Formats: sequence, structure tokens, C-alpha cells
Amino acid sequence: MMDALSPEQQMAALDDLPGWTYDAARKALFRNITLADFSAAFALMTRIALAAEQQDHHPEWSNVYNRIDIWLTTHDAGGVSARDVKMAQTIEAFL
Amino acid sequence: MMDALSPEQQMAALDDLPGWTYDAARKALFRNITLADFSAAFALMTRIALAAEQQDHHPEWSNVYNRIDIWLTTHDAGGVSARDVKMAQTIEAFL
Repeated sequence: MMDALSPEQQMAALDDLPGWTYDAARKALFRNITLADFSAAFALMTRIALAAEQQDHHPEWSNVYNRIDIWLTTHDAGGVSARDVKMAQTIEAFL
Repeated sequence: MMDALSPEQQMAALDDLPGWTYDAARKALFRNITLADFSAAFALMTRIALAAEQQDHHPEWSNVYNRIDIWLTTHDAGGVSARDVKMAQTIEAFL
């Protein structure tokens, strides 16, 4: 069981994650990423998928050609937890 | 340039694609697929991604853990074309 971040913790986390915003409707960290083409987008998705398995924490995401929308939320916590922040940091390291 | 299917052609195509429906809002063939877990879902997505590159025709899709939602549409045609039917058949062959 993982606790949701407090509003203060969440704001501090977002300060360190430029490009990410808080999607209140989905209680999730959100980022969209545009790559050169589908090949580049799916290559990034593959790296994220491997990290997701490693962290046992999986994104909610959609892809249209070279664009990826990613939401990170922790259902057990009812919102954003430290696991989402970690996954966002992992994704940033891939960019 | 690829023409959209006529309504009659589209209905005939859907008759041969159980599990697929027509999403009128997105003018797309739609199917959702549930796999055992994320690993199985992403493995299927990888096969579809390779086929998409091969056919130069890419899905619009989203994934949440073991579930995949897939929309197939041809923007140049303003709707569903023979390329979407071919891709749907390709995906079915993977299942």
C-alpha cells in the first residue's frame, strides 16, 4: 500500500518535472511527448514498458503515430504517489 | 490516396471481423482486447507495431495494464478504408 502525496509534496514533485502537469480529472501526472515518427515513439514506449515491469508500476497511455500521452496514477493510493514520481523521473531520463 | 469504404463495404468487412465495431465519433474500426497482464499486452502491441510499420498504417491506441483499445481509421480517406480492414485482419491473426 502506497500513500498519495500531499498537495505540497505533489507541487514540489511537479516543480522538478518540467513538462508534467497534474490531471485532476484522472488524479494523475500527465505528459505528452512528440517524437520524430512512429518508430521513435514506439521505441520510447518499449523502454518505458521495460521500466514499468521492473518497477511493477504501469502507465496509462495512448499513442497516435509520433505522439504519446502518458498518465501516471496509483489506484491503490487514490491519486499520485511516490511511485508515479519515480516513473516520471525514469521517463524523463529516457528523453 | 485511399478511398473510404462505402457503408455496404464497411458492413461486409465488419461481418468478417467479430470483435470489431464501428466507432462513428472517430470514424474508425474499434476493438478492445484484454490479455493476461501488461507483459502479454505489450507483447501484442509490439507485434502490431511491427506490422504497422510494415503496412505503413498505424493504429490509434491506448493501453492500461492488460487492456488495449485500438482504433483504425484512414485520415486521408476521412474514414475507414481497405487499409484499416487489412490491419484489423492482421491484428486478428495475432490473437
